[in-house]
Amino acid sequence: MARYSPSIAKLVAELGKLPGIGNKSAQRLAFHLLAQPLERVESLANAILEARRSTRLCSVCCNLTDKDPCEICAGSGRERTQICVVENPRDVAAMERIHEYKGLYHVLHGVISPLQNIGPDQIKLRELLARLRTEDLVSEVILATNPTVEGEATALYIARLLKPANIKTTRIAHGIPMGGDLEYADEVTLARAMEGRREI
Amino acid sequence: MARYSPSIAKLVAELGKLPGIGNKSAQRLAFHLLAQPLERVESLANAILEARRSTRLCSVCCNLTDKDPCEICAGSGRERTQICVVENPRDVAAMERIHEYKGLYHVLHGVISPLQNIGPDQIKLRELLARLRTEDLVSEVILATNPTVEGEATALYIARLLKPANIKTTRIAHGIPMGGDLEYADEVTLARAMEGRREI
Repeated sequence: MARYSPSIAKLVAELGKLPGIGNKSAQRLAFHLLAQPLERVESLANAILEARRSTRLCSVCCNLTDKDPCEICAGSGRERTQICVVENPRDVAAMERIHEYKGLYHVLHGVISPLQNIGPDQIKLRELLARLRTEDLVSEVILATNPTVEGEATALYIARLLKPANIKTTRIAHGIPMGGDLEYADEVTLARAMEGRREI
Repeated sequence: MARYSPSIAKLVAELGKLPGIGNKSAQRLAFHLLAQPLERVESLANAILEARRSTRLCSVCCNLTDKDPCEICAGSGRERTQICVVENPRDVAAMERIHEYKGLYHVLHGVISPLQNIGPDQIKLRELLARLRTEDLVSEVILATNPTVEGEATALYIARLLKPANIKTTRIAHGIPMGGDLEYADEVTLARAMEGRREI
């Protein structure tokens, strides 16, 4: 005897593929959705499709955006001499929340991780180098990858690459606990980390 | 400066409306979805719409189904003399998982809760009574609402309603869960376990 009707079973299976959603949570979410008015459920489904379809990478900084170049790259009032290099788009959002950094970003979409077969070519590093070659205003590259083994190694790797180009390269301070995640740092810690950055 | 592009902000907001999904989880889910291939994202969105659109209540037992009557009510090989009354469709799934109960179900879609303004008319109780009036095979109604204050009160209320109809009404046993520890059981549970003791 089937436990759920096919369409409910399919929904539970799809929800269960999301990160951090186990089978029990998937069932709970599924029955929650089934009990909602149709228009609210459609609104969720459309938000998912719309966001996925309209989102692409900014051709300048590789952040997720629905306009190209993204709002930050196109924005007036941004300091065009600084580029803050982060691992992923969530880190840009975290940085923007401190309301202190006014420069530009570059999103790597990952870190160098030999164990997972992710080399310098699998992240948006080439794009960063090309950008530094054409944008001659840039005077500082702030390396804000996470303070994990891979994040540190990636920062060092980029610092070494940029040395000959004579661009000041800084690393955010380790006010963030080692092994932590930029995304979950509180604003004060993150602001401290920005403040205490040093040349490497 | 907007933290996210409008379509991403909308997606985060929609995901954040789900139960148990806070703002941080919603962001994490959103960026996970944005990094997925388009067809996987469409598959999720379609599963949501399809399940919500095709699901209705079984006209017999009020369980969620995409066929009417539902698979259980229409199924051969079910014991038509027993009706197990549960609070919600997830409870039917839980019962079916034990593979022991072969009777029918009735889903109340809630419990009587005066504090939340949910009276007997707000749950599928009228449907149960109508069903018992027409289906004359039924010889036992098993009350399997949760052992909460509201669940208990609802079970008692239904038992009292069915008394004149001369239908056997039973309540599932409460006691120490299997694998549980007597030492950590709360007083009420322990009292129930003593009360319900049986000769072995």
